[in-house]
Amino acid sequence: MLSTIIPKARPVLSNRRTIFNAIQRAREKTKSEKPPPPVAIPPTKRLAIVTCMDARINPFEQLGISKGEAHIIRNAGGMAKDALRSLVISQRLLGTRAIDVYHHTGCGMVTFKSPELRRLVKWGSPDDPACAEQIDSMDFLEFSDLEQSVKDDVNFLKESPLILKGTKIQGFIYHLETGEATRVI
Amino acid sequence: MLSTIIPKARPVLSNRRTIFNAIQRAREKTKSEKPPPPVAIPPTKRLAIVTCMDARINPFEQLGISKGEAHIIRNAGGMAKDALRSLVISQRLLGTRAIDVYHHTGCGMVTFKSPELRRLVKWGSPDDPACAEQIDSMDFLEFSDLEQSVKDDVNFLKESPLILKGTKIQGFIYHLETGEATRVI
Repeated sequence: MLSTIIPKARPVLSNRRTIFNAIQRAREKTKSEKPPPPVAIPPTKRLAIVTCMDARINPFEQLGISKGEAHIIRNAGGMAKDALRSLVISQRLLGTRAIDVYHHTGCGMVTFKSPELRRLVKWGSPDDPACAEQIDSMDFLEFSDLEQSVKDDVNFLKESPLILKGTKIQGFIYHLETGEATRVI
Repeated sequence: MLSTIIPKARPVLSNRRTIFNAIQRAREKTKSEKPPPPVAIPPTKRLAIVTCMDARINPFEQLGISKGEAHIIRNAGGMAKDALRSLVISQRLLGTRAIDVYHHTGCGMVTFKSPELRRLVKWGSPDDPACAEQIDSMDFLEFSDLEQSVKDDVNFLKESPLILKGTKIQGFIYHLETGEATRVI
Protein backbone atom coordinates (compact mmCIF):
# COMPACT_ATOMS: atom_id res chain seq x y z
CA MET A 1 0.00 0.00 0.00
CA LEU A 2 2.91 2.31 -0.78
CA SER A 3 0.63 4.71 -2.65
CA THR A 4 -1.17 5.63 0.57
CA ILE A 5 2.08 6.45 2.44
CA ILE A 6 3.96 8.41 -0.24
CA PRO A 7 1.68 11.04 -1.73
CA LYS A 8 1.60 11.28 -5.48
CA ALA A 9 4.06 13.87 -6.75
CA ARG A 10 2.23 16.72 -8.43
CA PRO A 11 3.32 17.68 -11.93
CA VAL A 12 6.30 20.05 -11.75
CA LEU A 13 4.53 22.87 -13.63
CA SER A 14 1.56 22.82 -11.31
CA ASN A 15 3.91 22.88 -8.30
CA ARG A 16 5.78 25.88 -9.67
CA ARG A 17 2.48 27.63 -10.30
CA THR A 18 1.41 27.00 -6.75
CA ILE A 19 4.60 28.61 -5.42
CA PHE A 20 4.24 31.48 -7.88
CA ASN A 21 0.63 31.99 -6.84
CA ALA A 22 1.58 31.92 -3.17
CA ILE A 23 4.23 34.61 -3.75
CA GLN A 24 1.72 36.66 -5.72
CA ARG A 25 -0.85 36.32 -2.98
CA ALA A 26 1.71 37.36 -0.36
CA ARG A 27 2.66 40.38 -2.44
CA GLU A 28 -0.93 41.42 -2.90
CA LYS A 29 -1.54 40.96 0.80
CA THR A 30 1.44 43.20 1.62
CA LYS A 31 0.17 45.79 -0.85
CA SER A 32 -3.29 45.86 0.67
CA GLU A 33 -1.87 45.86 4.19
CA LYS A 34 -1.07 49.57 4.32
CA PRO A 35 0.14 50.94 7.63
CA PRO A 36 -2.88 51.51 9.87
CA PRO A 37 -4.21 55.06 9.70
CA PRO A 38 -2.87 57.18 12.54
CA VAL A 39 -5.20 58.23 15.33
CA ALA A 40 -5.17 61.25 17.62
CA ILE A 41 -3.03 60.43 20.65
CA PRO A 42 -2.21 62.32 23.86
CA PRO A 43 1.23 63.97 24.11
CA THR A 44 3.47 61.81 26.31
CA LYS A 45 4.45 64.70 28.64
CA ARG A 46 0.78 65.73 28.95
CA LEU A 47 2.06 69.24 28.20
CA ALA A 48 0.81 72.06 25.97
CA ILE A 49 3.30 74.75 24.97
CA VAL A 50 2.11 78.21 23.88
CA THR A 51 4.71 80.23 22.02
CA CYS A 52 5.24 82.77 19.26
CA MET A 53 5.07 82.14 15.50
CA ASP A 54 8.46 83.93 15.13
CA ALA A 55 10.51 82.29 12.37
CA ARG A 56 13.60 82.10 14.59
CA ILE A 57 11.97 79.88 17.20
CA ASN A 58 12.21 76.09 16.88
CA PRO A 59 10.55 74.70 20.02
CA PHE A 60 11.91 71.18 19.42
CA GLU A 61 15.48 72.41 19.26
CA GLN A 62 15.29 75.28 21.72
CA LEU A 63 12.73 74.38 24.36
CA GLY A 64 13.94 70.83 25.01
CA ILE A 65 10.94 69.05 23.53
CA SER A 66 10.95 65.85 21.47
CA LYS A 67 8.36 64.78 18.92
CA GLY A 68 5.28 63.30 20.57
CA GLU A 69 5.81 64.97 23.94
CA ALA A 70 3.76 68.18 23.79
CA HIS A 71 1.10 70.04 21.87
CA ILE A 72 2.73 73.12 20.39
CA ILE A 73 0.43 76.08 19.92
CA ARG A 74 1.94 79.05 18.12
CA ASN A 75 0.52 82.45 17.26
CA ALA A 76 1.67 86.07 17.00
CA GLY A 77 3.27 86.69 20.40
CA GLY A 78 2.39 83.31 21.89
CA MET A 79 -0.77 84.80 23.39
CA ALA A 80 -2.76 82.58 25.77
CA LYS A 81 -6.08 84.25 24.95
CA ASP A 82 -5.67 83.28 21.30
CA ALA A 83 -4.77 79.72 22.28
CA LEU A 84 -7.86 79.06 24.40
CA ARG A 85 -9.81 76.99 21.85
CA SER A 86 -6.76 74.79 21.27
CA LEU A 87 -6.07 74.45 25.00
CA VAL A 88 -9.63 73.28 25.74
CA ILE A 89 -9.30 70.60 23.05
CA SER A 90 -5.80 69.71 24.30
CA GLN A 91 -6.96 69.30 27.91
CA ARG A 92 -10.43 67.80 27.53
CA LEU A 93 -9.89 65.49 24.56
CA LEU A 94 -6.18 64.71 24.62
CA GLY A 95 -5.36 64.71 28.33
CA THR A 96 -2.74 67.47 28.75
CA ARG A 97 -2.43 68.72 32.33
CA ALA A 98 0.36 71.32 32.16
CA ILE A 99 0.81 74.52 30.13
CA ASP A 100 4.10 76.34 29.48
CA VAL A 101 3.83 79.86 28.04
CA TYR A 102 6.93 81.20 26.24
CA HIS A 103 7.22 84.82 25.06
CA HIS A 104 10.55 86.00 23.63
CA THR A 105 12.95 88.91 23.27
CA GLY A 106 12.85 90.75 19.96
CA CYS A 107 9.15 90.05 19.53
CA GLY A 108 7.18 92.06 16.97
CA MET A 109 4.28 92.39 19.44
CA VAL A 110 5.97 95.31 21.21
CA THR A 111 6.44 97.30 17.99
CA PHE A 112 2.86 98.44 17.28
CA LYS A 113 -0.55 99.31 18.72
CA SER A 114 -3.86 97.81 17.56
CA PRO A 115 -5.36 101.17 16.40
CA GLU A 116 -2.31 101.80 14.15
CA LEU A 117 -2.55 98.34 12.62
CA ARG A 118 -6.29 98.74 12.06
CA ARG A 119 -5.66 102.06 10.30
CA LEU A 120 -2.97 100.44 8.13
CA VAL A 121 -5.30 97.62 7.03
CA LYS A 122 -8.21 99.99 6.32
CA TRP A 123 -5.90 102.32 4.40
CA GLY A 124 -5.06 99.38 2.11
CA SER A 125 -8.75 98.61 1.46
CA PRO A 126 -10.45 102.00 1.54
CA ASP A 127 -13.78 100.95 -0.01
CA ASP A 128 -14.29 97.68 1.81
CA PRO A 129 -16.83 97.89 4.66
CA ALA A 130 -16.45 94.14 5.44
CA CYS A 131 -12.72 94.68 5.97
CA ALA A 132 -13.32 97.71 8.19
CA GLU A 133 -15.89 95.87 10.30
CA GLN A 134 -13.70 92.80 10.79
CA ILE A 135 -10.52 94.70 11.57
CA ASP A 136 -12.28 97.02 14.02
CA SER A 137 -13.53 94.05 16.02
CA MET A 138 -10.10 92.40 16.14
CA ASP A 139 -7.88 92.72 19.22
CA PHE A 140 -4.28 92.17 18.18
CA LEU A 141 -3.18 91.51 21.79
CA GLU A 142 0.05 93.51 21.50
CA PHE A 143 2.04 94.27 24.67
CA SER A 144 4.69 96.74 25.79
CA ASP A 145 6.37 94.91 28.70
CA LEU A 146 7.69 91.43 27.90
CA GLU A 147 7.90 90.11 31.47
CA GLN A 148 4.49 91.51 32.37
CA SER A 149 2.98 89.93 29.25
CA VAL A 150 4.12 86.49 30.43
CA LYS A 151 2.66 87.09 33.91
CA ASP A 152 -0.59 88.37 32.41
CA ASP A 153 -0.94 85.31 30.19
CA VAL A 154 -0.25 82.83 33.00
CA ASN A 155 -2.75 84.62 35.24
CA PHE A 156 -5.31 84.72 32.44
CA LEU A 157 -5.05 80.93 32.13
CA LYS A 158 -5.11 80.38 35.90
CA GLU A 159 -8.31 82.42 36.16
CA SER A 160 -10.00 81.08 33.03
CA PRO A 161 -13.07 78.96 33.80
CA LEU A 162 -12.29 76.90 30.69
CA ILE A 163 -8.89 75.68 31.92
CA LEU A 164 -8.95 72.68 34.26
CA LYS A 165 -8.40 73.38 37.95
CA GLY A 166 -5.05 72.00 39.08
CA THR A 167 -3.32 72.58 35.74
CA LYS A 168 0.39 73.33 36.25
CA ILE A 169 0.90 76.64 34.43
CA GLN A 170 4.34 78.24 34.05
CA GLY A 171 5.60 81.28 32.14
CA PHE A 172 9.02 81.81 30.54
CA ILE A 173 10.98 84.32 28.48
CA TYR A 174 13.01 82.81 25.67
CA HIS A 175 16.09 84.92 25.00
CA LEU A 176 16.83 84.82 21.26
CA GLU A 177 20.27 86.41 21.76
CA THR A 178 21.57 83.70 24.12
CA GLY A 179 19.31 80.76 23.31
CA GLU A 180 18.34 80.46 26.98
CA ALA A 181 14.90 80.47 28.59
CA THR A 182 14.28 81.99 32.02
CA ARG A 183 11.24 81.29 34.15
CA VAL A 184 9.14 84.34 35.00
CA ILE A 185 6.25 82.82 36.92
CA MET B 1 70.08 117.11 20.93
CA LEU B 2 69.73 113.32 20.89
CA SER B 3 67.31 113.36 23.88
CA THR B 4 64.66 115.14 21.83
CA ILE B 5 64.80 112.60 18.99
CA ILE B 6 64.93 109.37 20.99
CA PRO B 7 62.20 109.36 23.65
CA LYS B 8 63.20 108.27 27.12
CA ALA B 9 62.62 104.57 27.73
CA ARG B 10 60.00 104.02 30.41
CA PRO B 11 60.86 101.73 33.31
CA VAL B 12 60.13 98.10 32.38
CA LEU B 13 57.63 97.56 35.23
CA SER B 14 55.54 100.55 34.23
CA ASN B 15 55.50 99.36 30.62
CA ARG B 16 54.29 95.89 31.67
CA ARG B 17 51.58 97.45 33.83
CA THR B 18 50.36 99.52 30.91
CA ILE B 19 49.97 96.43 28.74
CA PHE B 20 48.25 94.56 31.59
CA ASN B 21 45.86 97.44 32.15
CA ALA B 22 45.08 97.63 28.45
CA ILE B 23 44.24 93.90 28.39
CA GLN B 24 42.07 94.32 31.49
CA ARG B 25 40.23 97.25 29.94
CA ALA B 26 39.65 95.27 26.74
CA ARG B 27 38.29 92.34 28.76
CA GLU B 28 35.95 94.57 30.73
CA LYS B 29 34.76 96.23 27.52
CA THR B 30 33.96 92.81 26.01
CA LYS B 31 32.06 91.85 29.16
CA SER B 32 29.92 94.98 29.10
CA GLU B 33 29.35 94.74 25.34
CA LYS B 34 26.43 92.30 25.44
CA PRO B 35 25.06 91.13 22.10
CA PRO B 36 22.58 93.70 20.75
CA PRO B 37 18.96 92.95 21.64
CA PRO B 38 17.18 91.10 18.83
CA VAL B 39 14.52 92.86 16.79
CA ALA B 40 11.47 91.53 14.96
CA ILE B 41 12.54 90.56 11.46
CA PRO B 42 10.63 89.26 8.40
CA PRO B 43 10.88 85.54 7.58
CA THR B 44 13.30 85.08 4.68
CA LYS B 45 10.84 83.02 2.58
CA ARG B 46 8.09 85.60 3.23
CA LEU B 47 5.95 82.59 4.10
CA ALA B 48 3.46 81.86 6.90
CA ILE B 49 2.65 78.23 7.65
CA VAL B 50 -0.59 77.28 9.40
CA THR B 51 -0.59 73.78 10.86
CA CYS B 52 -1.85 71.64 13.75
CA MET B 53 -0.56 71.64 17.34
CA ASP B 54 -0.31 67.81 17.16
CA ALA B 55 2.70 66.60 19.16
CA ARG B 56 3.88 64.37 16.30
CA ILE B 57 4.36 67.25 13.85
CA ASN B 58 7.74 69.00 13.63
CA PRO B 59 7.39 71.54 10.80
CA PHE B 60 11.14 72.17 10.62
CA GLU B 61 11.90 68.50 10.12
CA GLN B 62 8.84 67.46 8.16
CA LEU B 63 7.74 70.43 6.06
CA GLY B 64 11.18 71.35 4.71
CA ILE B 65 11.53 74.63 6.60
CA SER B 66 14.68 76.04 8.19
CA LYS B 67 14.87 78.46 11.10
CA GLY B 68 14.24 82.04 10.02
CA GLU B 69 12.35 81.15 6.85
CA ALA B 70 8.67 81.18 7.86
CA HIS B 71 6.22 82.18 10.54
CA ILE B 72 4.77 78.99 12.00
CA ILE B 73 1.25 79.30 13.34
CA ARG B 74 -0.09 76.22 15.12
CA ASN B 75 -3.45 75.52 16.70
CA ALA B 76 -5.87 72.60 17.14
CA GLY B 77 -6.36 71.38 13.58
CA GLY B 78 -4.30 74.08 11.89
CA MET B 79 -7.43 76.16 11.35
CA ALA B 80 -7.09 79.28 9.23
CA LYS B 81 -9.94 81.11 10.96
CA ASP B 82 -8.12 80.80 14.29
CA ALA B 83 -4.91 82.05 12.68
CA LEU B 84 -6.35 85.26 11.24
CA ARG B 85 -5.01 87.68 13.89
CA SER B 86 -1.52 86.19 13.50
CA LEU B 87 -1.73 86.26 9.68
CA VAL B 88 -2.67 89.96 9.61
CA ILE B 89 0.36 90.76 11.81
CA SER B 90 2.55 88.46 9.70
CA GLN B 91 1.52 90.11 6.43
CA ARG B 92 1.14 93.75 7.37
CA LEU B 93 4.02 94.15 9.84
CA LEU B 94 6.49 91.45 8.84
CA GLY B 95 6.05 91.23 5.08
CA THR B 96 4.94 87.63 4.42
CA ARG B 97 3.24 87.16 1.06
CA ALA B 98 2.46 83.41 0.91
CA ILE B 99 0.45 81.10 3.19
CA ASP B 100 0.70 77.28 3.31
CA VAL B 101 -2.08 75.48 5.20
CA TYR B 102 -1.27 71.94 6.42
CA HIS B 103 -3.90 69.64 7.94
CA HIS B 104 -2.93 66.04 8.73
CA THR B 105 -4.10 62.44 8.91
CA GLY B 106 -4.94 61.14 12.37
CA CYS B 107 -6.10 64.57 13.51
CA GLY B 108 -8.18 64.84 16.67
CA MET B 109 -10.44 67.41 14.98
CA VAL B 110 -12.45 64.66 13.25
CA THR B 111 -13.19 62.82 16.51
CA PHE B 112 -15.74 65.13 18.15
CA LYS B 113 -18.49 67.71 17.64
CA SER B 114 -18.60 71.14 19.31
CA PRO B 115 -21.91 70.49 21.19
CA GLU B 116 -20.43 67.31 22.76
CA LEU B 117 -17.29 69.14 23.87
CA ARG B 118 -19.35 72.01 25.28
CA ARG B 119 -21.44 69.51 27.27
CA LEU B 120 -18.26 67.83 28.56
CA VAL B 121 -16.78 71.12 29.78
CA LYS B 122 -20.05 72.23 31.42
CA TRP B 123 -20.44 68.83 33.05
CA GLY B 124 -17.02 69.38 34.70
CA SER B 125 -18.07 72.82 36.06
CA PRO B 126 -21.77 72.47 36.78
CA ASP B 127 -22.18 75.61 38.90
CA ASP B 128 -20.11 78.01 36.85
CA PRO B 129 -22.17 80.39 34.69
CA ALA B 130 -18.99 82.13 33.38
CA CYS B 131 -17.74 78.79 32.12
CA ALA B 132 -21.08 77.98 30.48
CA GLU B 133 -21.27 81.36 28.78
CA GLN B 134 -17.71 81.22 27.43
CA ILE B 135 -17.92 77.65 26.21
CA ASP B 136 -21.29 78.19 24.52
CA SER B 137 -19.86 81.07 22.49
CA MET B 138 -16.82 79.08 21.41
CA ASP B 139 -16.68 77.42 17.98
CA PHE B 140 -14.20 74.54 18.10
CA LEU B 141 -13.90 74.44 14.28
CA GLU B 142 -13.94 70.64 14.08
CA PHE B 143 -14.31 68.96 10.67
CA SER B 144 -15.32 65.57 9.30
CA ASP B 145 -13.61 65.49 5.88
CA LEU B 146 -9.85 66.11 5.93
CA GLU B 147 -9.44 67.08 2.27
CA GLN B 148 -12.49 69.33 2.33
CA SER B 149 -11.23 71.03 5.49
CA VAL B 150 -8.03 72.05 3.66
CA LYS B 151 -10.04 73.39 0.71
CA ASP B 152 -12.39 75.26 3.03
CA ASP B 153 -9.49 76.90 4.88
CA VAL B 154 -7.69 77.96 1.71
CA ASN B 155 -10.93 79.40 0.31
CA PHE B 156 -11.64 81.15 3.61
CA LEU B 157 -8.27 82.91 3.39
CA LYS B 158 -8.67 83.72 -0.32
CA GLU B 159 -12.01 85.35 0.40
CA SER B 160 -11.04 87.09 3.65
CA PRO B 161 -10.94 90.89 3.32
CA LEU B 162 -8.13 90.92 5.89
CA ILE B 163 -5.71 88.87 3.79
CA LEU B 164 -3.73 90.80 1.15
CA LYS B 165 -4.89 90.42 -2.44
CA GLY B 166 -2.32 88.48 -4.45
CA THR B 167 -1.20 86.29 -1.55
CA LYS B 168 -0.12 82.84 -2.79
CA ILE B 169 -2.24 80.45 -0.72
CA GLN B 170 -1.80 76.67 -0.91
CA GLY B 171 -3.30 73.77 1.03
CA PHE B 172 -1.71 70.40 1.88
CA ILE B 173 -2.39 67.18 3.73
CA TYR B 174 0.51 65.92 5.81
CA HIS B 175 0.40 62.11 6.03
CA LEU B 176 1.68 61.09 9.46
CA GLU B 177 1.93 57.42 8.39
CA THR B 178 4.32 58.05 5.48
CA GLY B 179 5.85 61.41 6.39
CA GLU B 180 4.79 62.86 3.04
CA ALA B 181 2.75 65.92 2.24
CA THR B 182 0.39 66.07 -0.73
CA ARG B 183 -0.99 69.28 -2.19
CA VAL B 184 -4.79 69.52 -2.14
CA ILE B 185 -5.35 73.02 -3.54
